[in-house]
Amino acid sequence: MSQRVVLLAHEKFPDGSKTANGIIRYGDQDVVAVLDRDRAGDRVADHLPGVSDAPVVGSFGDVEGEVDELIVGISPIGGAFDESWRPDVRAAIEAGCDVTAGLHYFLNDDEEFAALAADHGVTLTDVREPHEGLGVAEGRADEVSADVVLTVGTDCGVGKMTATMELAAAAEAAGVDACVVPTGQTGIMVEGWGNPVDRVVSDFTAGAVEEMVLERGDDHDLLIVEGQASIVHPAYSAVTCGILHGAMPDALVLCHEAGRKAIHGYEDTALPPIEEYVDLYESVAAPVHGTEVVAGALNTSGVDDDDAAREAVADFSERLGAPAADLVRFDAGDVVGALR
Amino acid sequence: MSQRVVLLAHEKFPDGSKTANGIIRYGDQDVVAVLDRDRAGDRVADHLPGVSDAPVVGSFGDVEGEVDELIVGISPIGGAFDESWRPDVRAAIEAGCDVTAGLHYFLNDDEEFAALAADHGVTLTDVREPHEGLGVAEGRADEVSADVVLTVGTDCGVGKMTATMELAAAAEAAGVDACVVPTGQTGIMVEGWGNPVDRVVSDFTAGAVEEMVLERGDDHDLLIVEGQASIVHPAYSAVTCGILHGAMPDALVLCHEAGRKAIHGYEDTALPPIEEYVDLYESVAAPVHGTEVVAGALNTSGVDDDDAAREAVADFSERLGAPAADLVRFDAGDVVGALR
Repeated sequence: MSQRVVLLAHEKFPDGSKTANGIIRYGDQDVVAVLDRDRAGDRVADHLPGVSDAPVVGSFGDVEGEVDELIVGISPIGGAFDESWRPDVRAAIEAGCDVTAGLHYFLNDDEEFAALAADHGVTLTDVREPHEGLGVAEGRADEVSADVVLTVGTDCGVGKMTATMELAAAAEAAGVDACVVPTGQTGIMVEGWGNPVDRVVSDFTAGAVEEMVLERGDDHDLLIVEGQASIVHPAYSAVTCGILHGAMPDALVLCHEAGRKAIHGYEDTALPPIEEYVDLYESVAAPVHGTEVVAGALNTSGVDDDDAAREAVADFSERLGAPAADLVRFDAGDVVGALR
Repeated sequence: MSQRVVLLAHEKFPDGSKTANGIIRYGDQDVVAVLDRDRAGDRVADHLPGVSDAPVVGSFGDVEGEVDELIVGISPIGGAFDESWRPDVRAAIEAGCDVTAGLHYFLNDDEEFAALAADHGVTLTDVREPHEGLGVAEGRADEVSADVVLTVGTDCGVGKMTATMELAAAAEAAGVDACVVPTGQTGIMVEGWGNPVDRVVSDFTAGAVEEMVLERGDDHDLLIVEGQASIVHPAYSAVTCGILHGAMPDALVLCHEAGRKAIHGYEDTALPPIEEYVDLYESVAAPVHGTEVVAGALNTSGVDDDDAAREAVADFSERLGAPAADLVRFDAGDVVGALR
């Protein structure tokens, strides 16, 4: 039986609840409810078309039915725990539920939660806590037999995780044995394994990715490594650069959101032209392992009109000099074909 | 009175003992002895000209004179503790000395050392342990009144820390109020403050640098930020990229070692041409904060002949399109003049 989960997404569902949305779309969990006090009474299907429906409720106490696990499905900039979530986490533990989060703030380090979890015999899981024994990259990821594709982005929150999942599914549908290599909390929660690369010691960033590529790279035909952030992000570019060199990808898929003009949360930092991203990713990667942007994934969820969305994709493709698609809205065929 | 220190550098002095050499050259500590079992009986001055002399001895038990502190002056790739050093650390603690290290392995987490230190009332200091409360960069380092210069490199171990210290000293000598912003264990030990940027959570890499620039940037005319590794390093580029975006430097000084052909320890990775480094550093930095390579620092310590060294500097300068010098061997004047 699937794990029955409640997703905490207060004040953020659906536009700011990347983790909740990823689990709703790609996880094999059974989503019992979403917690969002601003949208209590709505339904998930009102906001996310084409997924299993579930009620949106205001607090854990309002959830009806059996629940195995509460998952924190949002992650503010900086990964802090918002104290307004405490009553729901407490209520879940007291109801005998496990609690899982992907924050920089660890549930297991919270004295109240740790004590309460011990009392009630439930497990607190911090997926952003790296395992022991990570080390520096040895520059060996290119030794695996699989083709390695990395999703890279123009910014955070443009759809790298989504593109990674959609590409893997489309490749599988085309008969290719594909494996996702998750590097962030949502991907790890969906796939059930992975290293939280943005949380590792900076010296081990590339090493944490290399470890995963070496672990799975001889068991599949295609690895799709989930990228993070952007090579020009004012705060997180270290993570991007480490993944780029640690994964030693054979091909890159550039992910972008239609209409995005500046780095989210850093509005003074304008996005450079798409052509420049292509050049930056390829030229930074080249001395370690030559690669090229072979396709693009454009998130057109903010574009209402299908024709306008198609036009945006065509324009993006032209700038890239490679096939592109909105992998959720349109067909992924050309993009998947470009990967190998 | 200066702190009387012994520097542990077994089997690595002087070519592989970057931290020990940095303290000998730039620290205000009084170096009582260097420990290197392979060179016992030598003198420091046999190997490093122009510094205060001290004996090289085989073990802590062979040191003569009063000692306040043992400093681990070497750091292998990966930052591990070598078990062959244990008897010296133990002997130092038992003799009532503090012990300081900049390894990824923390002395304070070693049960034997922690217990022994408690028994003898000495302090174990792990300078690579980041302080609590680091966070993500806000893209604000450009708000400080000081000019910010960052040393960047073609590889690890080409002389960024040395260039940083030499540039600060030369700027001070020219009447400029300059401050070093240390990002690695040696710089932190020499300057007595700083964040070990290669040890922070990767999401906080840029933030750890920004914090330091904001802390000191309105108290000086010139900040010289110590860079780390290289933008094309297979293992450590994440650290480099985070520093580049977190520091938001007004100018870059490219550091290189004459004759270096491949990334040290990753001999399959050839160094790209100098011109390409200039382009990579400038183009990756530009979307966050425009900057340019205004000067170069060439380490010619492996070139015996002064004329050949001068020729190497001239060639490096031509490739950079900017003034260059070996800041230890020759005059720093042109390079310092280019900084502001």
